[in-house]
Amino acid sequence: MTAKVASTTVTPEAALELLSPTEVNQLVNQTDADLFKIFRRCALAVLNTGNNSDDTNEIMEEYADFGIRFIRQARGIKLQLTNAPASAFVDGKMIRGIREQLFSVLRDVVYITNEIRNSGRFNLTTQAGITDAVFHILRNANVVRKGDVNPLVVCWGGHSISRDEYDFTKDVGYHLGLRDMNIITGCGPGAMKGPMKGAAIGHAKQHIQNRRYIGITEPGIIAAESPNPIVNELVIMPDIEKRLEAFVRMAHSIIVFPGGVGTAEEILYILGLLLHPSNKRMPFPLVFAAAEKNKAYFDTINHFIASTLGAEAQSRYRVISADCAEVARSVRKGSDDVLLYRRRSKDSFYFNWKLNIPKDLQTPFEPTHDSMSRLNLSKDQPIHMLAANLRRAFSGIVAGNVKEQGIALIRKHGPFQLKGDPEIMAALDMLLRTFVEQNRMKIGEGTYKPCYQVVT
Amino acid sequence: MTAKVASTTVTPEAALELLSPTEVNQLVNQTDADLFKIFRRCALAVLNTGNNSDDTNEIMEEYADFGIRFIRQARGIKLQLTNAPASAFVDGKMIRGIREQLFSVLRDVVYITNEIRNSGRFNLTTQAGITDAVFHILRNANVVRKGDVNPLVVCWGGHSISRDEYDFTKDVGYHLGLRDMNIITGCGPGAMKGPMKGAAIGHAKQHIQNRRYIGITEPGIIAAESPNPIVNELVIMPDIEKRLEAFVRMAHSIIVFPGGVGTAEEILYILGLLLHPSNKRMPFPLVFAAAEKNKAYFDTINHFIASTLGAEAQSRYRVISADCAEVARSVRKGSDDVLLYRRRSKDSFYFNWKLNIPKDLQTPFEPTHDSMSRLNLSKDQPIHMLAANLRRAFSGIVAGNVKEQGIALIRKHGPFQLKGDPEIMAALDMLLRTFVEQNRMKIGEGTYKPCYQVVT
Amino acid sequence: MTAKVASTTVTPEAALELLSPTEVNQLVNQTDADLFKIFRRCALAVLNTGNNSDDTNEIMEEYADFGIRFIRQARGIKLQLTNAPASAFVDGKMIRGIREQLFSVLRDVVYITNEIRNSGRFNLTTQAGITDAVFHILRNANVVRKGDVNPLVVCWGGHSISRDEYDFTKDVGYHLGLRDMNIITGCGPGAMKGPMKGAAIGHAKQHIQNRRYIGITEPGIIAAESPNPIVNELVIMPDIEKRLEAFVRMAHSIIVFPGGVGTAEEILYILGLLLHPSNKRMPFPLVFAAAEKNKAYFDTINHFIASTLGAEAQSRYRVISADCAEVARSVRKGSDDVLLYRRRSKDSFYFNWKLNIPKDLQTPFEPTHDSMSRLNLSKDQPIHMLAANLRRAFSGIVAGNVKEQGIALIRKHGPFQLKGDPEIMAALDMLLRTFVEQNRMKIGEGTYKPCYQVVT
Amino acid sequence: MTAKVASTTVTPEAALELLSPTEVNQLVNQTDADLFKIFRRCALAVLNTGNNSDDTNEIMEEYADFGIRFIRQARGIKLQLTNAPASAFVDGKMIRGIREQLFSVLRDVVYITNEIRNSGRFNLTTQAGITDAVFHILRNANVVRKGDVNPLVVCWGGHSISRDEYDFTKDVGYHLGLRDMNIITGCGPGAMKGPMKGAAIGHAKQHIQNRRYIGITEPGIIAAESPNPIVNELVIMPDIEKRLEAFVRMAHSIIVFPGGVGTAEEILYILGLLLHPSNKRMPFPLVFAAAEKNKAYFDTINHFIASTLGAEAQSRYRVISADCAEVARSVRKGSDDVLLYRRRSKDSFYFNWKLNIPKDLQTPFEPTHDSMSRLNLSKDQPIHMLAANLRRAFSGIVAGNVKEQGIALIRKHGPFQLKGDPEIMAALDMLLRTFVEQNRMKIGEGTYKPCYQVVT
Repeated sequence: MTAKVASTTVTPEAALELLSPTEVNQLVNQTDADLFKIFRRCALAVLNTGNNSDDTNEIMEEYADFGIRFIRQARGIKLQLTNAPASAFVDGKMIRGIREQLFSVLRDVVYITNEIRNSGRFNLTTQAGITDAVFHILRNANVVRKGDVNPLVVCWGGHSISRDEYDFTKDVGYHLGLRDMNIITGCGPGAMKGPMKGAAIGHAKQHIQNRRYIGITEPGIIAAESPNPIVNELVIMPDIEKRLEAFVRMAHSIIVFPGGVGTAEEILYILGLLLHPSNKRMPFPLVFAAAEKNKAYFDTINHFIASTLGAEAQSRYRVISADCAEVARSVRKGSDDVLLYRRRSKDSFYFNWKLNIPKDLQTPFEPTHDSMSRLNLSKDQPIHMLAANLRRAFSGIVAGNVKEQGIALIRKHGPFQLKGDPEIMAALDMLLRTFVEQNRMKIGEGTYKPCYQVVT
Repeated sequence: MTAKVASTTVTPEAALELLSPTEVNQLVNQTDADLFKIFRRCALAVLNTGNNSDDTNEIMEEYADFGIRFIRQARGIKLQLTNAPASAFVDGKMIRGIREQLFSVLRDVVYITNEIRNSGRFNLTTQAGITDAVFHILRNANVVRKGDVNPLVVCWGGHSISRDEYDFTKDVGYHLGLRDMNIITGCGPGAMKGPMKGAAIGHAKQHIQNRRYIGITEPGIIAAESPNPIVNELVIMPDIEKRLEAFVRMAHSIIVFPGGVGTAEEILYILGLLLHPSNKRMPFPLVFAAAEKNKAYFDTINHFIASTLGAEAQSRYRVISADCAEVARSVRKGSDDVLLYRRRSKDSFYFNWKLNIPKDLQTPFEPTHDSMSRLNLSKDQPIHMLAANLRRAFSGIVAGNVKEQGIALIRKHGPFQLKGDPEIMAALDMLLRTFVEQNRMKIGEGTYKPCYQVVT
Repeated sequence: MTAKVASTTVTPEAALELLSPTEVNQLVNQTDADLFKIFRRCALAVLNTGNNSDDTNEIMEEYADFGIRFIRQARGIKLQLTNAPASAFVDGKMIRGIREQLFSVLRDVVYITNEIRNSGRFNLTTQAGITDAVFHILRNANVVRKGDVNPLVVCWGGHSISRDEYDFTKDVGYHLGLRDMNIITGCGPGAMKGPMKGAAIGHAKQHIQNRRYIGITEPGIIAAESPNPIVNELVIMPDIEKRLEAFVRMAHSIIVFPGGVGTAEEILYILGLLLHPSNKRMPFPLVFAAAEKNKAYFDTINHFIASTLGAEAQSRYRVISADCAEVARSVRKGSDDVLLYRRRSKDSFYFNWKLNIPKDLQTPFEPTHDSMSRLNLSKDQPIHMLAANLRRAFSGIVAGNVKEQGIALIRKHGPFQLKGDPEIMAALDMLLRTFVEQNRMKIGEGTYKPCYQVVT
Repeated sequence: MTAKVASTTVTPEAALELLSPTEVNQLVNQTDADLFKIFRRCALAVLNTGNNSDDTNEIMEEYADFGIRFIRQARGIKLQLTNAPASAFVDGKMIRGIREQLFSVLRDVVYITNEIRNSGRFNLTTQAGITDAVFHILRNANVVRKGDVNPLVVCWGGHSISRDEYDFTKDVGYHLGLRDMNIITGCGPGAMKGPMKGAAIGHAKQHIQNRRYIGITEPGIIAAESPNPIVNELVIMPDIEKRLEAFVRMAHSIIVFPGGVGTAEEILYILGLLLHPSNKRMPFPLVFAAAEKNKAYFDTINHFIASTLGAEAQSRYRVISADCAEVARSVRKGSDDVLLYRRRSKDSFYFNWKLNIPKDLQTPFEPTHDSMSRLNLSKDQPIHMLAANLRRAFSGIVAGNVKEQGIALIRKHGPFQLKGDPEIMAALDMLLRTFVEQNRMKIGEGTYKPCYQVVT
């Protein structure tokens, strides 16, 4: 049975110390049911750190009796928890890092609800309005800071990876930390924890005071990818797309470690951005890094990109295998160039305002037979558009193969009909088959059966 | 001719460093004309520090060519000033304390306009809504702080006082500073500057790190009472009544120095509060302090209170003449009792939530023949109501004697008709005559002529 | 071949920034050859961190061409290094933590030479004089601090231990860190690194600002036990005995992990102290902690103590196997009791002045046939004296079995002649045999042959 | 009668928190009687702040019953005071700034006795040895600091000056503070307090964090010139000459205000230095500043220098009357040049090592008939030597006129016989007469009678 702490109270962090009676009432009376549902879910994820399950339903069920509510007290409020995961406590007292993450969650959930969604201040149907919202959430969370000149490296990759891959991400993190770089990840386990843990040791050796381990997550993913305890700055974004935008606007460089299909989608997202004509001249270090024995992953990806997007796309990233120090040196050098570029163009260090994120990359793609059949997968278009469409096709095919809703659609209407160059479709097919072989995509029964047909 | 700096730019303080393009646009394009009018007026007052005139019109005229506007720059904004008072600069560079005050003004003017007035979040027609607004403005200005345990002493008194009186306020401030107390005033010259200047020396001797010299002002008064340069926390409240509320909610004790009629009105305001049944048991140190040779002022006041409000009112304050150290000891002791009371009742140290400020003290009184005739100035009412009504009568009579609008009303309709106990009216008459004698109220021609009649 | 950095310079830390010309001359001219020999040896050890060899001779030989000297420059000095271990550098720049350790070494070596040895200020032939010297070295190194209330736990144990044992020490360290405790060790690898590395993670989770990983070493041992990079406070003591005194006077509690014969000697040292009549009533938490599969080590030790020193000795320590959290809880509780005891007795937190360390435990024991034959190993003496004598006998026997000088003595004069109770001698014999069996004492050829005879 | 605090205890500052039993014994047992006599005298001076007497004997007599001793307590020591001046306390508690000065005194007196005088480490008979001692005392007092880039301005001038002169020094200080400069003075009243008090206001307006008001004094003068309370860094030097050396080695520029004969001596001292061939090319801003109505003082001085040392000497200083802002601008500009010069020549900012102070300026001059008659006061010598000799002659004549010992010598042996150019002697005579006229030198009976004869 899972260890739980029957009942306890937590005193808030500084940000919630000075509340007016009206604000206290809002929290105590839970006037906004949605807000509280999301807050409970995220709070549970934070408290559940160290739990190894990545099955959200399982976690939610296990802690069905978990309760969280605010209690009014003379000088403010406190949190009352019931049946909380015992792992968040030491000798009955909540671990301070977790307590801080808990109130970061509250800060962001309240801010997103009140200031972003309900205030009418942001026009979330425009490109600029969405970017504005992303910036305000990050500023409110105090993660954009003017004075910080140590580069921020975004690390992407699978959350469920082998020990070898994990150790490699840790070693890369160590070499990043030795070079005074700070880490941003999606803040779960695997490739999101390794670089932080490694950097922590590198930072310790270098006696760095201001060590930043920034986790950026969103309510849909947080339960499956509980923030690891090293995260000392946690931000909850409203959804997947704004989380991606937060990553790329805060990054001074990006390292991608091997992952699964999600990681491949992220690669197509960032290439879609970097190949966009308005971003072409912007320096943006992007490194694909794998341990010697896992380099097949990026061989596959690299081959797929060569066949579809071509040499220009390949010129925007570098593949480095085995050599952790070289990965770190490469992004340090690249980040220095970025900082120099920003200084020269008088752009801010803390937020990449100049990166153009087209609106279709800011909004989700819903794969249906209709939307899939309308995708243009030919080379008769600018490559940044092909990259964006490939990302969508990829996303749809993955859904058709492994996601509940997608499988249902295929069962009902038959395979998706895709129009595209045979060469591109073949490359896509090959990529997916290889992922299955490499055990990076779970397929129900034995052999892989495409859920699409190429219509010529 | 006045020395002016033809043209200069100022880089903003931290709070304005991280702006979104939308926010930059709002400032640069001056979309809100009212906001900019108020901002220009307050900014000029801040820059005009050290100027001795208290004639707002004169100042505004002298600096009719003063210009202030925002300029967009790559990484944010900066302020462009033209024809600014030269006294704000040293060798062409703005004094940092003034620069900080300048951006405090911007912070508050923008906050009051956007968040208090335009957001619809505060119901300014209710008692609680007004208090909430006052709290939010103070919190946004970062002057309410949880950790601060050094008592805040509000000092009231005239801004245009004799050298003797000024030196006395400075000496009291010195003894307050020696006892680790911080100062709040209305932030102009005279009794608003003296205590801060004295405290600065006391603080220096005691090696106090966190020295607070808080100035609370409002747009109508700021030009006549330019913040003195010692103020290191400046707050602009929206109007006189909210400024008064900010004073009494932040105070751990209040010292009143001799002043003019304005000071007498403030005394009636605080007595109206402290005599209110719901505030009767709340400790609230109130000291009337004067130098030996100016003690007549409080003799007059004390006599007036004895004749009208009686012994209960007198029990809420203490009059101390000549002995500066005793004034400081008295409010230190009283403030310690207040902190103990707050701790026991689990109330906050930084904001006196429990003080009941009736709505009619939160809103302005407009003296007209009608409103004056309806005032109840008899002893047939609770004394806190009599105090409030006396404040209004007093305010009206002063207007009728010396204020442009009031004099015009009297000219047109004859004297105000007041209904009240003859004893009270006589006391009021005596008080005003004494102020004229003491040169504390300026009267046009020679002799004082009452602008009211008692109707029985 | 070993990677070396041919030539580089290092700028000193703050402590050496403000030097007078005379002080610069002393360093540049290397007027004291002994001082420089010790400094070079210790500096090499610090730079050689991460190297796995514990063979001092091998290391010295490998870096025979390592050079270190001071260069005068206008505003002070800098260090010139030649052929330094490359592992101390990242991209050609010395790791800051190592740089700081390097200057800690210089600070202590200079202080010990000039202030302790040459100044004539300390009478190193008296108990009080030695303790004074120990205190001054620690104070000069800024490791005794008045304000610090987080308990310091001294961890002892083997530097060359199995992965299992190492992981256990790390896990105990983690649980100590979660409970806000700081770590002191001998600062090499193994049981001296594990607790620090674990505590670093515990501290990170608890967001502890003032994390202390104190390493206390001495010139004879430092090369074999290079400070691990986590150590952020490094102190070089003059010799083994002063290092032991530094440990026990700074400790609020001690945890002993499995080790070899050296660890057993340390156990007898601390028991000799704690059983001394003048220390009997002093609380001093002492825990012997081992992983489940290594608990045999302390079974052996515990059995030996039972047979020789008896129940009173056993009452001064607690043996905990497998349960890391319980080890941490136990020393946290014990340390809290110590702090309370110190507060009550108005003793300092930062240095255990009241602990009586008899002079014979402050000075080295030289095992010879004569000194060994004069040891009293009977129960006809106070147990603290028996403990001290057992430590000596033990030390001599180990020397006779494995140390160059001891083996030579035995070859020349035959076995040591020991006078003692047969029961005690049997227990000693058993202990040593078990260590050989457990592979904790290396014996030249196959079977263990005692190097002593019991004379009755 | 003087208010005294009968008996009180004071807990030491940080520096004395960590004492060994031996160190405690030294203090408690007062083993060094001289040290304690000096300590008591300096401590009394610090406690006696605000007292206006500059008559040391009077003060010592008034506080003949003042007692100070150390009391051993479990965790260290505390100070026991009896019959201490009440002005050092507020409501029975010692003012923190005074407490800190008290322990600065202890720190320096102990350091000078133990480390400078008794350790044998410094050869006080050599130029380098004396400079070394000066540096070590300042370093131990933590007033030399590497990071500090705000210029230090030494202000010299009379301690007993008119209100006009005092206000002028305060106004100059204000303009120095506005320009981020810190102040060093001899730390008594008058021209030693005014610049600090003014700078405090300038610093406050500029929101400067690290405000330094450094007082440098010595045991012979401290009682007559009690440190003013604004001094936040107090250093006791062993004697007048080392105090002068501390001034000139720490200064980035020097301002001299009007004073008496002592001030004139200081001017000759600094000119003697700056005219020395090895210092000739070193930038060293020197400004003589006086209020409009006191400019006669420097007219006199300037005329004397013109007649004796000539234009070269005049080129090393600038005389500014009335314009405080110009004084400040001038030394700010000059100090910036000094910092630039130090940076280029890689000399330290915090201590002017390169200034050559000839040994005869490091050691006191004893005026006797013999030593006076051997002074060379002709122009047949390098001007820096003439300046030094003039300082001596001046010193002797002043002694002969006003100092007890000097007057006795003259009574006994008749006037000093001086050999020198008549022109020089005439200028000297004129200078002294003018000082008498300006009331800057007190002469017993009415008319000034020279105590010397010129021998040709």
